[in-house]
Amino acid sequence: MPHMIIRGISVPQIQSISKALVADLATLCACGTDNFMLECLPTISIQDGQVSDTYPFIEVGWFDRGQEVRDAYASIVTKHILATGVPEVEIAFKVYREDSYYWNGKLV
Amino acid sequence: MPHMIIRGISVPQIQSISKALVADLATLCACGTDNFMLECLPTISIQDGQVSDTYPFIEVGWFDRGQEVRDAYASIVTKHILATGVPEVEIAFKVYREDSYYWNGKLV
Amino acid sequence: MPHMIIRGISVPQIQSISKALVADLATLCACGTDNFMLECLPTISIQDGQVSDTYPFIEVGWFDRGQEVRDAYASIVTKHILATGVPEVEIAFKVYREDSYYWNGKLV
Repeated sequence: MPHMIIRGISVPQIQSISKALVADLATLCACGTDNFMLECLPTISIQDGQVSDTYPFIEVGWFDRGQEVRDAYASIVTKHILATGVPEVEIAFKVYREDSYYWNGKLV
Repeated sequence: MPHMIIRGISVPQIQSISKALVADLATLCACGTDNFMLECLPTISIQDGQVSDTYPFIEVGWFDRGQEVRDAYASIVTKHILATGVPEVEIAFKVYREDSYYWNGKLV
Repeated sequence: MPHMIIRGISVPQIQSISKALVADLATLCACGTDNFMLECLPTISIQDGQVSDTYPFIEVGWFDRGQEVRDAYASIVTKHILATGVPEVEIAFKVYREDSYYWNGKLV
């Protein structure tokens, strides 16, 4: 954790930024780089009856760290994504509850 | 936004209804048709040890608009999905928080 | 419902445990085995610029049943997953709202 589930951005684009992105996020969150998961999720988008490009979207799943860290997190992710040439990106945060998150059967 | 993440319904089925579906939803929500995202998400379902058909399911991600609009939204989506010949469909709404949703790094 | 969306565990691994897993969960939840959905979700994970294995993760979507049942649910899922040889697994629960969940257009 955090998990980043990525739609509408290619695997090579994510590969090209993954090291620098995760390094910046680990500094922000004061945790190890191995906590972060970047996962590209293939979907098939449909617009006006046609298969179309998927809008660049990232859902971040984590334990909430407050508005200031969230804003900074979104800013870092956006900076790196836009650097790949993607023209725009939306990011939504999904909060896990600490009473509902288990590692090997135990609450973390 | 809204985002509709669709499981268990084929891409051609969604293509066949996408224009009429989005037109009806845009009227309900009083917004442009280009706000809606329809994305088919491939999953592999398993039942009794066998790979099986995925149950038709749609998750709608949005900023909440209240029970009346939600009911009407579900009714419109259901009507169009059932018209494709799918016998049943479940729809769940997922609410994004306005303090946690970013466009190009800025809260929307 | 419950829905289990599975990442980072192979389809044959899930097939090998699906009957026993669902039988145990149905006993816990006092409901029929046909209520449970097991869906493997393919994602492409990236670490240090390389495509890598996806961390074993299961998101359970349901109406909340309280801490005791949740703990027991996570324990059952973990036991069966680890029995396949997967070394670790994380499980998060996502709660659906009863005012926002529809079957064929009607609140369930």
